[in-house]
Order: sequence, then C-alpha cells, then structure tokens
Amino acid sequence: MKRIPLILVTNDDGIHAGGMKALISVARKFGNVVAISSREPMSGMSHAITIKVPLRVKLISQEPGLTSYVTNGTPVDGVKLVFNSLSERKPDLLLSGINHGSNSSSSVLYSGTMAAAMEGAVNHIPSIGFSLLSFDPNADFTASVPYAEEMIRHVLEKGLPDGICLNVNIPALPAEKIRGIRVCSQANGYWKEEFERRTDPNGTEYYWLTGFFHNREPENGGTGTDEWALKNGYVSVVPISTDLTAYGVLEQMKSLELAQTGKNE
Amino acid sequence: MKRIPLILVTNDDGIHAGGMKALISVARKFGNVVAISSREPMSGMSHAITIKVPLRVKLISQEPGLTSYVTNGTPVDGVKLVFNSLSERKPDLLLSGINHGSNSSSSVLYSGTMAAAMEGAVNHIPSIGFSLLSFDPNADFTASVPYAEEMIRHVLEKGLPDGICLNVNIPALPAEKIRGIRVCSQANGYWKEEFERRTDPNGTEYYWLTGFFHNREPENGGTGTDEWALKNGYVSVVPISTDLTAYGVLEQMKSLELAQTGKNE
Repeated sequence: MKRIPLILVTNDDGIHAGGMKALISVARKFGNVVAISSREPMSGMSHAITIKVPLRVKLISQEPGLTSYVTNGTPVDGVKLVFNSLSERKPDLLLSGINHGSNSSSSVLYSGTMAAAMEGAVNHIPSIGFSLLSFDPNADFTASVPYAEEMIRHVLEKGLPDGICLNVNIPALPAEKIRGIRVCSQANGYWKEEFERRTDPNGTEYYWLTGFFHNREPENGGTGTDEWALKNGYVSVVPISTDLTAYGVLEQMKSLELAQTGKNE
Repeated sequence: MKRIPLILVTNDDGIHAGGMKALISVARKFGNVVAISSREPMSGMSHAITIKVPLRVKLISQEPGLTSYVTNGTPVDGVKLVFNSLSERKPDLLLSGINHGSNSSSSVLYSGTMAAAMEGAVNHIPSIGFSLLSFDPNADFTASVPYAEEMIRHVLEKGLPDGICLNVNIPALPAEKIRGIRVCSQANGYWKEEFERRTDPNGTEYYWLTGFFHNREPENGGTGTDEWALKNGYVSVVPISTDLTAYGVLEQMKSLELAQTGKNE
C-alpha cells in the first residue's frame, strides 16, 4: 500500500499570504501538509540562514492533514527546521509559493521562494517553486491552481533529477488566456537598480532600493527563455540546478592551473 | 594609454576582518580600490537584498588609491550601491573576501562572499570570491596572497565569460605545502543540520543552527571536485554560473509541456 505523501509548503511572503493559502489548498488534495512560514514577508532573503539570533518556532494550528508553524527565520531556515526537527519523516515533496510577483530570469537569485525550493533539492527532496506575475496582495490564484496541480501530479509520479528543482512562473492572465506550459531556460537579464536617496529628520542620508528588470535577450529571439514564454502567455518552467558549476567553461578555465605560484611539484 | 583599473573589494565578514584587509592590500597593487562592507559580519546572508529598512552608507576613509565605505546592507546591497550610486565608473574587477572559512561545494549557496561575486557577474563585471579554510578571526593570509595575485592578474588580462565568476578556496596550509591550483566542479554535498534546542529564561524554546558538511561524492572518486582538490592541498577554482538552468535535463523535462491543463491551442 502506498503511504500518503507528506508535503512541505512554504513561501517568502509570510503565513498570511493568499498565495500560500492557495498552495496549501492544492497540496491537501495530494497528501498531508506541514506548512511553515514567517509572520512578516521575507522577500529578497534569497538563501540566507539565521546565525546571529535564536530561531523561534510556534505551532499555530493542527488539524487532520495540516500542521502549520510560524518562525522568525528565513524561508531556508524554515525548510531546515522541518527537515531536521519538526517532522518525523522527510517530506516527499516541497512546494514553495505561490509567490506574489515574478521570479523569472535572474530574479531567481534574490528569491526566498526559490531558495526554499533549492534547499529542498540540495536535500534530494523533489521541490517546486511557484510564482504568479502579480504583486497584488489580493491577487486571484484561480488560474494558477490547475497548473500547480498538474506539476504536483507529475513530480509525485516521476520525481525530479537529484539536485534539481523547478522554477514555475505563471502569467497574471485569466485561465482561458493561458496558452499552456513551456519548459525554458533562464533568460539572460538583470535588475538595473537605482537608489532613491532621501534625507531623514536628523539630516542623514539614506537609500531605498528601486529598479527595473532589463532583458539582455535579442528582441525577436530568446524564444526558449522564461521571459519569452511569460510574455507570450505561457506558464514557464525552468529546471534549476543547485550545482552552480559553469561546466561549459571548465576546459577554457584550465589555463589558470598553469600559474606557477607556490609551485613545488 | 591604459587607464588604471578600478577594483571593488567587498566581503561578508565585515569591514574589520583580516581577510578583507589582506585582499585590499593585494588589490592596491593592481589599481584603485573602492571598498565596501558592513560593520557587523553578514555570513550566511547569501544573495539577500534589503527591502524593508533604509540603506545607510558612510564614507569612512579616503586616501590616494583607496576609498572605503560601510553600510548596514548585505554584501549584495553593497555591490549594488557601488555600481549604481557610489562610483562614477563601473569597476573593472570585483573581489570578494578573503572569507574566514570555506565556501566550497554547496556552501556557495549560503555565502554572502560568493553572492557578492555573483552579483558582479550578473552585471558583467569580472568577479572573484576568495575563501580561506580557517574560521580563525586572526587567520594568517600570507600563503593566500600569491594565489590571489595570480588570479587577479589572469582575470584583469583575459577577463571572464559573461555571467560567470570564480569561487576560489584556499587550504589553510603554509605556502610550501600548497600544491598549486586546480580548476574544479562543485562537489555534490550538503549541510546535515542539527538544531540545538534550548529554553530561554521565560521558558520559551528556541533553536541554534548547528551542523556538519556531508560529501556525497564517492570516497575514492570526486577527483575533479573542489572538495577533493582542497583535501589534497590544492587551491580550488570553480567557475560559477549565474544562469541556474539545468541544461542537462531540459529535454527530459519537456514531458511537462504535454500537460493538457488550460489547453486552448
């Protein structure tokens, strides 16, 4: 007899975010859920872990099929706490999100949502991060649900390669406008930051980070990238590697070994 | 006439760390230095950016060839501040470290030192992160210096491929025991975390993150990995990609596109 899957659900928008509630509802159709998040949003925390202050965890609700915790920790702390202290068995699946806002292209590097999924992958737990392209706290996740269900079914059935998780971004469109799923590469782009400089009441300057995304892909190209898929009404799925080695340039970089510094062979 | 290189130096151990002082000294041999860091250590901050509190920056010293700032921000915030607000021209090179402690294998994911280097790479600035395998705050960086010089010379001369930075780890050995440089892949490993559970004076439980690194590479294998190189007395250099796409499994994942959810084509 197959045991009921244990599914860890987390996010970086905090325990009260609509996107997390939507994802928990979907996850409960497939198994027992343990949910963990912070009270306050943790956007932009990336793969940060908490070293300097003690971690707190509170069980906030328990009902058949759903156990929920809050923590003062980051998304990655939360995942580690479940893996190591809060759950007797390892989860069969980790779901992160649904994030309020895109995590496509290089945004994956800053994202707490995707860091949680990557932490799952490092621990060989099949993991998926979901994001909806809307920062609206009251965003409507209805059109996202069937795609989340489809991915969960696929991954529970077939698993994922070791060390690899999925970065799923969903266009903020009504269901009938979404054209399907595209498996993509991460678009080459970056955040062109500008800092807004202000002066506080004490006369001291401070900065707020602002900025906009700049896509480096050719205007009519980049067809295999997540940015292209999203602009064209598709759900983008990028398989993300936790092995960051740039294998394509390993040979080329070997010239560094010829440096004779400290030579004693 | 070639202009004098502008070199950005940062770290995640704070402005007073010996490793940063050592790296600034090396960098000054090659160009003008702009240094930025935090007062307090920022280890484990990964690619986190500061969104919720205002960023502060203070010019702490200025002399010919060296301008130094402190910020309350993360290592990545500091890099963004220099790129966008504090420097009139883009740096020709970014150096991060020298970190007090290893950033090999999957530790790269948690490292503020390496996140700063990755932020440089995303912005197409040749970037190198350096780490010495010693957590000692009074660690001796003498043996690291010639390797840092060698890498800097190489990268200033030949550049690095777009979007790729170097993760350099140096064994904590005297110079004569270091056997040279090896260009490596990231070893397959993870941190086996355990949390130390304590009770505060109010009777409330809290946790401290502890743990140890677990290498998944075969015992006598893994010869091309950074962990192998370091254990065998070599300086390891891993070219790190900021494009996280797992290209090797893209084709295999295409089966996800067959999902008929929301189909309307």
